[in-house]
Amino acid sequence: MGPHPAVAAIRLAVRRVLHDVLNDHSAPHAAPEAPRTPPLVLVACSGGADSMALASALAFEAPKLGIRAGGVTVDHGLQPGSDLRAAEVVARLTALRLDPVESAAVHVGRDGGPEAAARDARYAALDAAADHHGAAAILLGHTRDDQAETVLLGLARGSGIRSLSGMAATSGVDGRYRRPFLHVDRQTARKACMAQSLPVWDDPHNTDPAYTRSRLRHEGLPALEKALGKGVVEALARTAQLSRDDADALDTWAAQAEAMVRDPAGLLECAKLYALPPAVRRRVLRRAAIEAGAPAGALFARHIEEVDRLITGWRGQGEINLPGKVVAQRQGGRLVIRQG
Amino acid sequence: MGPHPAVAAIRLAVRRVLHDVLNDHSAPHAAPEAPRTPPLVLVACSGGADSMALASALAFEAPKLGIRAGGVTVDHGLQPGSDLRAAEVVARLTALRLDPVESAAVHVGRDGGPEAAARDARYAALDAAADHHGAAAILLGHTRDDQAETVLLGLARGSGIRSLSGMAATSGVDGRYRRPFLHVDRQTARKACMAQSLPVWDDPHNTDPAYTRSRLRHEGLPALEKALGKGVVEALARTAQLSRDDADALDTWAAQAEAMVRDPAGLLECAKLYALPPAVRRRVLRRAAIEAGAPAGALFARHIEEVDRLITGWRGQGEINLPGKVVAQRQGGRLVIRQG
Repeated sequence: MGPHPAVAAIRLAVRRVLHDVLNDHSAPHAAPEAPRTPPLVLVACSGGADSMALASALAFEAPKLGIRAGGVTVDHGLQPGSDLRAAEVVARLTALRLDPVESAAVHVGRDGGPEAAARDARYAALDAAADHHGAAAILLGHTRDDQAETVLLGLARGSGIRSLSGMAATSGVDGRYRRPFLHVDRQTARKACMAQSLPVWDDPHNTDPAYTRSRLRHEGLPALEKALGKGVVEALARTAQLSRDDADALDTWAAQAEAMVRDPAGLLECAKLYALPPAVRRRVLRRAAIEAGAPAGALFARHIEEVDRLITGWRGQGEINLPGKVVAQRQGGRLVIRQG
Repeated sequence: MGPHPAVAAIRLAVRRVLHDVLNDHSAPHAAPEAPRTPPLVLVACSGGADSMALASALAFEAPKLGIRAGGVTVDHGLQPGSDLRAAEVVARLTALRLDPVESAAVHVGRDGGPEAAARDARYAALDAAADHHGAAAILLGHTRDDQAETVLLGLARGSGIRSLSGMAATSGVDGRYRRPFLHVDRQTARKACMAQSLPVWDDPHNTDPAYTRSRLRHEGLPALEKALGKGVVEALARTAQLSRDDADALDTWAAQAEAMVRDPAGLLECAKLYALPPAVRRRVLRRAAIEAGAPAGALFARHIEEVDRLITGWRGQGEINLPGKVVAQRQGGRLVIRQG
């Protein structure tokens, strides 16, 4: 008798990613002097169902592929007793025969709001653990449901298709972060834990209505499903993938176009900008503003639209102020974007 | 004392569109033998707040620009007494001094579901009215809220950014349909009706939970706003515009790329397809399938993905069946897509 279908599904998802990690690890461009020790793959585990399922699948699949499997849990220090909780997760990962297993205590600042600050602290700790142990990859337990929520959060920004593209299957320095469960739904991860009698812990943040993502998960997305049907989560996840590919292609085009619309002095020629499709022109303008020193995170669609009107709706406008003290103005058929 | 701000807002929105209509009407490519009668602009009016506000603004602005203003209401015949209702709308439009004003009775079939069938019948009747009266344009009362709902409906299909691009400001044969209120919110239209003491009628379909759009309007979108904040409608409308421009640019690229990847015999070269960005390659494959006879509406993302694997994941797969009896197969480095 084979494993429970949910367990089979999570193991398959992890096995595919481990094959990718092995391929990358043994790629011809890998340093020849690299030691021939088996690669180490870490799982980032909160103790919740998604990451416990991921840990169990890693523990099962890694040895069969000659991969060492370890785990890290991050103690965000946001609730009393979080250190005991982290120690409990370490014990559970150790019981799965992961090795090394560590708990990393972090200090969560306040920059960008509570969710962003916690995320920044968490990834810094995971990066440090990967560096310390020389890990080839860190697996993250984000599911298709998380992806759907991320797409809706991006949609609420209204800043275009890049923000609809959700989380990448592979991200971080050298693609060290991998998300094997982006096509696995949350329910499957829960079932896999139950089928394996794995104790799981529900993060109280996940149900705290003070958090936007939590409100989305427990109110927004269910209401959307009620209105639009049960396929919404899958549709959002598919939108993420399609949007990511589209955004990548348009970025490629914009990079090529930017080189074509500059004159020998490196200034942007308005007539050539005008001839570009609007979607490409706006991306060229955004690139130019960032190159001139505007911080990408502070540069909104409305800024770029205003600069775009120097090209498409020219009626003698003056300088346009952009974030980072960057100024855009039209001068004799050229668009000049520079730090003021 | 000027008009109520809501009235000023709807008039400005209509004035802008009428200027566009005049520009197009007097464009140099217009037939020289065209009679010099003033152009006629019709408003499509259900008697609801959005289209009554639109009718009132058209009645106010058109004479100032030398434009004749008329109106059409469509009697869908879906409720008892709908003919009396239509006659009432005709009377209200006539009271606004629109001329000509007509009611068009249609028969709503069942193809594609109740909403799609009603829409098809409505546009056919509007097209007929425009042809009959020689109208230069038909104004439609879709608001920013309608646009947001349309984006969410597209999102639920999960078929990529074209389906996120909502309704166009200009559409139909020769761009005859114009939507002046795409940046005006529903609340402004309602206020404008109240400020002008215009009687309005609420379409019972708008609150009938049997209709997907109604569920979205009264449950889905409010829940999303509660989770994500009040800016969601605006963000969705902005997403529509950005997605439309992005989809247009990628379609342009795909059209050019398709010409480049065909060999002298007109067959698609797999190596050249492989070199394209995935977003462009998938669009080229979609174009090729449609050219071969696959009906666009029946061709889903999963079909294209399967064809794409002949290029990116070739391991000797056999023929792939597409809608419209179209078959795709790889033969000696060429991708052959043809009706079987």
